[in-house]
Amino acid sequence: MSVRIGLIGAGRMGKTLAYHLAFTVETAEFLAVADPDPQAVAAVAHQYQVPHTYTDYRELLTRDDIDAVVIASPTNTHGDVVQAAAAAGKHIFTEKPLALTLAECDAAIAAVEQAGVKMQVGFMRRFDAAYMAAKEKIDAGLIGEPVLFKAVGRDPWRTSLDYARREASGGLILDMGIHDFDLARWLMGSEVVRVHSEGGCLVFPELADVGDIDNAVVNLKFASGAVGNVDVSRNAIYGYDIRTEVIGSEGAVMVGTLQQTATLFLTKNQVTHDTIPGFMARFKDAYAAEIKAFVEAVESGGETAVSGADARAATAIGIAATISFDEGRPVSLNELT
Amino acid sequence: MSVRIGLIGAGRMGKTLAYHLAFTVETAEFLAVADPDPQAVAAVAHQYQVPHTYTDYRELLTRDDIDAVVIASPTNTHGDVVQAAAAAGKHIFTEKPLALTLAECDAAIAAVEQAGVKMQVGFMRRFDAAYMAAKEKIDAGLIGEPVLFKAVGRDPWRTSLDYARREASGGLILDMGIHDFDLARWLMGSEVVRVHSEGGCLVFPELADVGDIDNAVVNLKFASGAVGNVDVSRNAIYGYDIRTEVIGSEGAVMVGTLQQTATLFLTKNQVTHDTIPGFMARFKDAYAAEIKAFVEAVESGGETAVSGADARAATAIGIAATISFDEGRPVSLNELT
Amino acid sequence: MSVRIGLIGAGRMGKTLAYHLAFTVETAEFLAVADPDPQAVAAVAHQYQVPHTYTDYRELLTRDDIDAVVIASPTNTHGDVVQAAAAAGKHIFTEKPLALTLAECDAAIAAVEQAGVKMQVGFMRRFDAAYMAAKEKIDAGLIGEPVLFKAVGRDPWRTSLDYARREASGGLILDMGIHDFDLARWLMGSEVVRVHSEGGCLVFPELADVGDIDNAVVNLKFASGAVGNVDVSRNAIYGYDIRTEVIGSEGAVMVGTLQQTATLFLTKNQVTHDTIPGFMARFKDAYAAEIKAFVEAVESGGETAVSGADARAATAIGIAATISFDEGRPVSLNELT
Amino acid sequence: MSVRIGLIGAGRMGKTLAYHLAFTVETAEFLAVADPDPQAVAAVAHQYQVPHTYTDYRELLTRDDIDAVVIASPTNTHGDVVQAAAAAGKHIFTEKPLALTLAECDAAIAAVEQAGVKMQVGFMRRFDAAYMAAKEKIDAGLIGEPVLFKAVGRDPWRTSLDYARREASGGLILDMGIHDFDLARWLMGSEVVRVHSEGGCLVFPELADVGDIDNAVVNLKFASGAVGNVDVSRNAIYGYDIRTEVIGSEGAVMVGTLQQTATLFLTKNQVTHDTIPGFMARFKDAYAAEIKAFVEAVESGGETAVSGADARAATAIGIAATISFDEGRPVSLNELT
Repeated sequence: MSVRIGLIGAGRMGKTLAYHLAFTVETAEFLAVADPDPQAVAAVAHQYQVPHTYTDYRELLTRDDIDAVVIASPTNTHGDVVQAAAAAGKHIFTEKPLALTLAECDAAIAAVEQAGVKMQVGFMRRFDAAYMAAKEKIDAGLIGEPVLFKAVGRDPWRTSLDYARREASGGLILDMGIHDFDLARWLMGSEVVRVHSEGGCLVFPELADVGDIDNAVVNLKFASGAVGNVDVSRNAIYGYDIRTEVIGSEGAVMVGTLQQTATLFLTKNQVTHDTIPGFMARFKDAYAAEIKAFVEAVESGGETAVSGADARAATAIGIAATISFDEGRPVSLNELT
Repeated sequence: MSVRIGLIGAGRMGKTLAYHLAFTVETAEFLAVADPDPQAVAAVAHQYQVPHTYTDYRELLTRDDIDAVVIASPTNTHGDVVQAAAAAGKHIFTEKPLALTLAECDAAIAAVEQAGVKMQVGFMRRFDAAYMAAKEKIDAGLIGEPVLFKAVGRDPWRTSLDYARREASGGLILDMGIHDFDLARWLMGSEVVRVHSEGGCLVFPELADVGDIDNAVVNLKFASGAVGNVDVSRNAIYGYDIRTEVIGSEGAVMVGTLQQTATLFLTKNQVTHDTIPGFMARFKDAYAAEIKAFVEAVESGGETAVSGADARAATAIGIAATISFDEGRPVSLNELT
Repeated sequence: MSVRIGLIGAGRMGKTLAYHLAFTVETAEFLAVADPDPQAVAAVAHQYQVPHTYTDYRELLTRDDIDAVVIASPTNTHGDVVQAAAAAGKHIFTEKPLALTLAECDAAIAAVEQAGVKMQVGFMRRFDAAYMAAKEKIDAGLIGEPVLFKAVGRDPWRTSLDYARREASGGLILDMGIHDFDLARWLMGSEVVRVHSEGGCLVFPELADVGDIDNAVVNLKFASGAVGNVDVSRNAIYGYDIRTEVIGSEGAVMVGTLQQTATLFLTKNQVTHDTIPGFMARFKDAYAAEIKAFVEAVESGGETAVSGADARAATAIGIAATISFDEGRPVSLNELT
Repeated sequence: MSVRIGLIGAGRMGKTLAYHLAFTVETAEFLAVADPDPQAVAAVAHQYQVPHTYTDYRELLTRDDIDAVVIASPTNTHGDVVQAAAAAGKHIFTEKPLALTLAECDAAIAAVEQAGVKMQVGFMRRFDAAYMAAKEKIDAGLIGEPVLFKAVGRDPWRTSLDYARREASGGLILDMGIHDFDLARWLMGSEVVRVHSEGGCLVFPELADVGDIDNAVVNLKFASGAVGNVDVSRNAIYGYDIRTEVIGSEGAVMVGTLQQTATLFLTKNQVTHDTIPGFMARFKDAYAAEIKAFVEAVESGGETAVSGADARAATAIGIAATISFDEGRPVSLNELT
């Protein structure tokens, strides 16, 4: 049995997911694609031989022969599209974030629950081989009780000013930190209960003009008593730098690498290697694995790996950390209700 | 314009190439597949929706609507299939080795030349990102004049006894060393003129029963005066280990890695990481890139990246190194012609 | 000309410094040693042929033929011994911390200034080859403007319960963090103006009995606007783990290593290496370099590399970070004056 | 009880050993130093307060109060000095090589045996922490039966032309390879029975003028059946590069590192680190450990770690490998008798 799928959003991430729907996920039947841009729709439809195309995703949702939708529309539309898809009875894979406010998250989750459909949110790092190996070892007790979480999340470039606005992306801490906040909960096996942020606009003054910053550090306190810290930066010009450490009572796990290509160049008294250019290079295989896992969950009727509740929890941490930065004080997660 | 392709051989490597023909190479039209095993043919045809299937590759070659064939049949059939394909006017991509004897190589090359078709041989390492980066830097003069070549080529398991026979695989030195011999010529930019081998059956006594060994070292002398060494082993139980160094007058390049997953496990006073399980894990992307390059060469009418002459030259080194081991003396390559 | 030196304190660290006074620093003349423990004094005197021994350091200070003292007495005596040494007109090298309170730091600094003697405080990491290389590159502009500071400071064992008490060591954050706080100021070239800590007693419940914790994370805000984070842990059972990163607008520097011995052990599908057992293994050479630099400064009349003001500033950060942990709020450094 | 020692040779290596005799080896009493250069003798005597100085080492040997000598005279005098020292009844530590011919080795060994004194030869790598860890694991069976030996021995600079002459140093293969040949025997636990070399003068034409080369590879065949390869190069301009691998039936050990300082510099899209500048930086601690072990052996009456027979065996491999290069054929060690 195959799962008949419609793709909503044919931008950069939509194209990546389209490729996987067409070629990587054997049980996916890629039936339809929707995007307001007719050329983008046509390009995907042609490249992957998708029979049905739409410029309005709501029309796609009216098709009875579609079991599930994959949502890669702009960030600030995720919540609405999820609700519409749930109302149409479609299983849902949505790119992260689920929404930029907790109210929208709650509305989306409620719609999904009411419709009785499945939802998976695109925290693809959970499907990266390195993070999966870490999770497996932690769950197997290799490191004892996790007590310290450290995460580095750094981009080698400044995002667009339009995207940097709080209304569009949630701002640096929420936008970049959300993957680390999700990893924090997942790897530590405990909820974050309090956060404190420091940050600043230090390298790209133009970000300040749109209300954003380029560097921040976020302290985390977990329900288990464990502590943690996440740093996010937009100026890791050396390369895309994602590294995570979990220190436990009996050992530790470290995930991440700076090097992309297995080549060393040796010149006068020094050794040089390259770095990872961006998230697609680092997590290419994870994008394939997450969409495959979603289709399998739909097919088998099993649970999806990253629920709406997971997405809400990571978003809540990001919002609290942003408030902490704005107000210069620790913020307890239960302030957010 | 697309290139219409028939696949000959639906075993392990054939399936990998089938995937790439179907999904990775956009300009390939995967029209036919042939294999003596009807089930293997049916499986590939079903999975990748290949319209035409054959149990005799000669029938496949009779199709007028096929521009090129991809040969992944058993090693000892490559020569014959290449000749037949050339005679049928098909462009040819063949898995390595082209043949196990120089006479067969010559016959295949002559057939290709006479037919005026293109041929590319599957030395996929030339398409690996790490080796391509190395080659690029060497060609750009980063290391000055290359003077020392070192290669490690080690498998984590013993090959099958049937395959280990000289008649089937050429034996350890030719079978495993051929990739390194090709890298040696390519990276050093000079032909090998003399070899000397030492080796032994040291770990798997059953290999001796079929006339093979499990470890060898091969000294190389290049026409440029440069020197080199290749080691091959079947008992790297720690993992698949492919590393190459080129030392030049002004610098050096080192290619290869021991680690597969970007995860460190830290327990009492030690750090542990995994290794690369096998060639498919290490060179997965290179297999895609080489077949893509072949199809593009056919499409554009350009030169293929690894010619029949390249294949012959690497085979000649392997044969000479095997004679050196057998006879306990250095062997000059010009003895072989 | 040589510098005539008396050593105060013949415990573990005193013995290390004694070795360097005797053997490493050519211009040092090791004249006297004092320690309340007569056996410890005798052992050092015998091993390094030190002519004069005391059980009361005040007697050592009365010698006219001593130019400088090296203080390695218990942490909570540093302030008093520094004041006495200054009053006696001796140049002073003291192990860190200068004192556990700012009032004591101020008193020591005032005594030193009034006496017109030199003082250097034992932040030996500034003399480690790796940190010196980092500092040099930062000062040379390699990374542009430093904007993000990250430090890991983890011990592989629990300290003694007696030492863990706030009165003895200052507690985890001050005791272990002080080296990182000094590095923060030094490498970032900017003062810390605000801190926020989270921490807990998570692995060694007995530490809670004496009022200490075993893990903490400390956010830093610098006067320049830059941000940072330091983590300290007493349960890095995998090894002594000191790593520091400075990310700038144009590049970054990372200092530190997990591996002690240049040996890899490779067994079934994995690679293993050792780790650094403790601070003496990691900073052995730095201890030699710092005492050498002190003697040279005394000899040449130049500035010492780590002043009393440096020591006070690092202590202030540690105290503020401890208050932050105690009170659950960010603490501005200017609250402390 | 202490061991009273005379140092013969006050050049570069002599000064290093002098430091260790004076400061590192507690049970050594550094009584005398001899060197034809009066200034060199005076400098060492002054720096380390050595009471007795000589410009003729034979006079030093006449002292009854000297138990042992440490020989760091020019390479081509080692054999004579050893014989004289043995005749004088002194225990002997000599820098490598023991001698450049087997006849001289035999004469030295015979003199030592006849005199009933101890002798240790300066293969300091056996005292390096990384190599000791490797040896320990191999002996403990971690890697099963050793079957493949690989060694890299590369200098970052050309040696002096005077030293490069065969009469002075033995030439590239013997001079640089001898440490690796010793490691080969020691780590593999088996004698080398046959060698084959390729080499050339590829980077420094002036070496050819004095009869030397700058790069070579040497195949090894062991009595156990195992195989190996050593490469030596004088043009590793990237840094001093000493790495060794032993692959066994059950695992492997790899020793060596390219990086000297634990600092990474990260600039636009790349990571850079330094390398090891030379043998003194890499093996500093090993020089201390070997001389300490020698003094302890003299003191305790135990066996020395590296015997004259060991030195002869490594020299024999080097001589055979040089003959192989000269004559272009494999050379069996038993040709040398």
